[in-house]
Amino acid sequence: MIVTKIKGIIPPMVTPLLSNEELDMNGMKALVERMLDGGVSALFLLGTTGEAQSLSYELRYDFVKSVCRQVSGRVPILVGITDTCFDESVRMATYAKECGAVGVVAASPYYYAPSQQELIEYFTALGSAVPLPLYLYNMPSHVKVFLDVDTVLKLSKHPNIVGLKDSSANMTYFQTLLFHLGGKDGFALYVGPEENTGECIMMGADGAINGGANIFPSLYVDMYNAASKGNISEVSRLQGKIMQICTSIYTVGKYGSSYLKGVKCALSLMGICNGYMAWPYREFAPSERVLVRRALAKMGIDELK
Amino acid sequence: MIVTKIKGIIPPMVTPLLSNEELDMNGMKALVERMLDGGVSALFLLGTTGEAQSLSYELRYDFVKSVCRQVSGRVPILVGITDTCFDESVRMATYAKECGAVGVVAASPYYYAPSQQELIEYFTALGSAVPLPLYLYNMPSHVKVFLDVDTVLKLSKHPNIVGLKDSSANMTYFQTLLFHLGGKDGFALYVGPEENTGECIMMGADGAINGGANIFPSLYVDMYNAASKGNISEVSRLQGKIMQICTSIYTVGKYGSSYLKGVKCALSLMGICNGYMAWPYREFAPSERVLVRRALAKMGIDELK
Amino acid sequence: MIVTKIKGIIPPMVTPLLSNEELDMNGMKALVERMLDGGVSALFLLGTTGEAQSLSYELRYDFVKSVCRQVSGRVPILVGITDTCFDESVRMATYAKECGAVGVVAASPYYYAPSQQELIEYFTALGSAVPLPLYLYNMPSHVKVFLDVDTVLKLSKHPNIVGLKDSSANMTYFQTLLFHLGGKDGFALYVGPEENTGECIMMGADGAINGGANIFPSLYVDMYNAASKGNISEVSRLQGKIMQICTSIYTVGKYGSSYLKGVKCALSLMGICNGYMAWPYREFAPSERVLVRRALAKMGIDELK
Amino acid sequence: MIVTKIKGIIPPMVTPLLSNEELDMNGMKALVERMLDGGVSALFLLGTTGEAQSLSYELRYDFVKSVCRQVSGRVPILVGITDTCFDESVRMATYAKECGAVGVVAASPYYYAPSQQELIEYFTALGSAVPLPLYLYNMPSHVKVFLDVDTVLKLSKHPNIVGLKDSSANMTYFQTLLFHLGGKDGFALYVGPEENTGECIMMGADGAINGGANIFPSLYVDMYNAASKGNISEVSRLQGKIMQICTSIYTVGKYGSSYLKGVKCALSLMGICNGYMAWPYREFAPSERVLVRRALAKMGIDELK
Repeated sequence: MIVTKIKGIIPPMVTPLLSNEELDMNGMKALVERMLDGGVSALFLLGTTGEAQSLSYELRYDFVKSVCRQVSGRVPILVGITDTCFDESVRMATYAKECGAVGVVAASPYYYAPSQQELIEYFTALGSAVPLPLYLYNMPSHVKVFLDVDTVLKLSKHPNIVGLKDSSANMTYFQTLLFHLGGKDGFALYVGPEENTGECIMMGADGAINGGANIFPSLYVDMYNAASKGNISEVSRLQGKIMQICTSIYTVGKYGSSYLKGVKCALSLMGICNGYMAWPYREFAPSERVLVRRALAKMGIDELK
Repeated sequence: MIVTKIKGIIPPMVTPLLSNEELDMNGMKALVERMLDGGVSALFLLGTTGEAQSLSYELRYDFVKSVCRQVSGRVPILVGITDTCFDESVRMATYAKECGAVGVVAASPYYYAPSQQELIEYFTALGSAVPLPLYLYNMPSHVKVFLDVDTVLKLSKHPNIVGLKDSSANMTYFQTLLFHLGGKDGFALYVGPEENTGECIMMGADGAINGGANIFPSLYVDMYNAASKGNISEVSRLQGKIMQICTSIYTVGKYGSSYLKGVKCALSLMGICNGYMAWPYREFAPSERVLVRRALAKMGIDELK
Repeated sequence: MIVTKIKGIIPPMVTPLLSNEELDMNGMKALVERMLDGGVSALFLLGTTGEAQSLSYELRYDFVKSVCRQVSGRVPILVGITDTCFDESVRMATYAKECGAVGVVAASPYYYAPSQQELIEYFTALGSAVPLPLYLYNMPSHVKVFLDVDTVLKLSKHPNIVGLKDSSANMTYFQTLLFHLGGKDGFALYVGPEENTGECIMMGADGAINGGANIFPSLYVDMYNAASKGNISEVSRLQGKIMQICTSIYTVGKYGSSYLKGVKCALSLMGICNGYMAWPYREFAPSERVLVRRALAKMGIDELK
Repeated sequence: MIVTKIKGIIPPMVTPLLSNEELDMNGMKALVERMLDGGVSALFLLGTTGEAQSLSYELRYDFVKSVCRQVSGRVPILVGITDTCFDESVRMATYAKECGAVGVVAASPYYYAPSQQELIEYFTALGSAVPLPLYLYNMPSHVKVFLDVDTVLKLSKHPNIVGLKDSSANMTYFQTLLFHLGGKDGFALYVGPEENTGECIMMGADGAINGGANIFPSLYVDMYNAASKGNISEVSRLQGKIMQICTSIYTVGKYGSSYLKGVKCALSLMGICNGYMAWPYREFAPSERVLVRRALAKMGIDELK
């Protein structure tokens, strides 16, 4: 199968919720349109930013169907199938294909911690079992295991494994992947942390899967464009803006989850979607919300709810 | 609600499988009867040893129903509801009650890593939402977070939170829990690692949830009885036997999962149930199986398949 | 060389300081006499509780000489030689012998993190280079590496490696060592955390190296005696007292170092020695000191400074 | 005090040894001259690559004196003073000044793990006590603690704390430091891992402290120059060469220390200095040496010993 590489910004889409059991459908639509207007290259559903693991399967399925319908082919859609159960991953991938998605994304199963050899066997089997191209997802802080470079190199030869998203923030690791796999047909490398988008694109990454692109899609698209053209002064200017977001909106409170809470709170303040968060997280308290509001105002975002 | 404490050995039951999608029903029956004959005080389904997270929900539900029917009230049954999604935990607890289980067991949600304050809120909500008494499960190696002593002390006041299983192997932690909560009505303390059952029972723990009790139930029941009577010489003798298991059957290969693989392999060799393991783990290769066979033979278990 | 096993309580002696550069000689003498009066079996100098790594070499040497002189053969003395530099370890061991110590204690070098194979080579060389019997020290929280069971088993065959202190609090590990090495001539097993002294002695450990024995030596000696006789009801009573210390004096503040600060603060309040702590730690602030005073008062220690 | 920022490549100099107790003086001279010929901006002695912690203090002092004499003011010299003992750090800094060094570098004390508040107090005191400008050194894999961004921001206000070297490879962290402190007078930011030199310099870092600059100084100087001019195509070309080194010479064997062993082995094969490594590490075995030789040959380095 020939897969054309997706290049550019692929927001890991937030899942707008009214409650633990109900999607915010209006919010979903507004958010989709905002991101498409901003020039993103694709959408990634049910990732870490999408709170996938916190949602019931029913809700996950509904969300995939609804977003695919809303997007209606205007950009490609990737769906997260990370699961502790192999069969649930395959079931979700099958459904994603039915809905029109073009790829699936999987991190390691995350209750038991497999060895590298077990990871190779697992992803080889998964790559063969799913009906859409599979992207690997390196997310050690959440799944406990690192996809070692040697493991990725072996898996990259599987005909249905077509790329990797790295959320480790370990740039020694990412540069090593770029050295071995960068620029190859049939294998794409995406960076997760938005603090590193500029440098990674300049060094040869294919795109970035940045949570902030939910809030300010065009800013991240601009960064991708500047970096891929090697316009360093523009990269530097945009880096300042992105870092302002990272060091204000994402650092309210002393939570490990401040990033996730900050993204949803900002979207809620800007009237784009509801800010409800599924267990085990809770949305920001009013006192924290004030700080996000202040951070947004400083960036010139004024008409806040 | 008054809950009588369960005391003694509560095996974390293995889930016998024919494949990733099919239960080994004959194996399940044989295993249940063997454990009941051995004198265990209760059964714990869908825990870490039960490979719960690796099974599809359909299989999990089937297994709970089938074991409850097989046991038919002869001993109480606890069901694991650990999940990344709150609603799936509640749904499983509701089903467990319908099937006749008497309690549910939950570790922290294990994709996102909640703070201690978030854990308190989460388990408080979960304790109130489930229709059966809730046991906490401290399993830091798998869920990344530790249930701090202060967190447990706060949660122990919830009327529907009735105990804790500790699988950390950190005995400083367990002794601290015993100091604060040991011997209290309405809160039971169980130790996970079987290497520590003797000492923990002598120091006041209510029982032990030991994987080896799948294979040799009466050995662990004997240990519980000796330790609860303070018969140190008998504890010492039985400790030698348990350690022989731990240092042979559970240490084949260099897997993090050697314990789990060893338990299922031994059960399979002894003809009790099938040895299939769900992804991401694979059952032992023939060369490893030989080593388990040899270890069993050394213990005088001869009629092996 | 035949080494008679030291059995019983071996306090890891605090290093009384007037400042970063000066020993509290009067405090040292008072503390030594108090511990000897309390019935301890030996003293362990320059361990973790002794703040060895925080002291200049000159101070370390002075302390060893001074304590050896004060003890004057009344109990055996062990000296910590843990160092990142092999030659400094040997130099300290040589000096310890000159001063009259009977053994040395070493954890892994702790800047670089050696592999298990490198640890085997390192300790084999160290065991051969030092002029006194060598005890291994498993202290993973401070030195980053765990002395694996297989590593210890190999090293236990070295004629000059005669025992191990385990401060991991991982009782699965300790039980495994007891299974393989417990009761053997020529290799002693000591437990570090005092929360676990009772259970470990009952299960066959040779002794305990408990920081609290600086403050209340006879309490820990009583625990050793009760546990080694299998007097469970007395163990249980003493465990309550030890746990009261651990959960009050050692938990003031939210420091990783609360234990160390608590021990020195209690000694200072009881007028035994000065409470100064070497960098990077600082002694408790007055507000924290009040809490330790209150905890001591609750235990009936009234004449406090 | 006004300190002019050092910009460019600052090799963390290897310490050439004949044995655990003797410096390789000829190797030291050859290595110094090679690096100076290669255009490096400064030298950093007694860092992680310098095996400082493995050397006796006598050897460390000798090495500082000898290198300072050899360099004789041709480039500035920084000296590592990382120690578990505050007074030993100050003593080394004092000696470094006497020898003519212009700055000192310190990571956190690395036996006890201080809290961030304790780190602030510690480095504030250290900054005031040493007679040369102090550079912070973030090295979490070796010292267990991370210098949090907030901690660095507070310490950056100390008049005698003038920069930071980050060896975490966490580029989210480094970008956050660059955002807050990049381009400021009086505070320099250096990156450790050479895989990231190109991107970090392009994003505004002041220089790089790369181990590979011991072997190929001019390659790293070229990279610094290309990156600081924003010459992306040249950065990309040089990145390929640096990554070839990182993925061959530094990855022989499965040691955590492969990098360090690889650097010394390559220098030895190239006849620059002796390859002896101090405990706890051992130099490569002949079979591993062959692999480094092959890697060097592939890079066109032919006249090997």
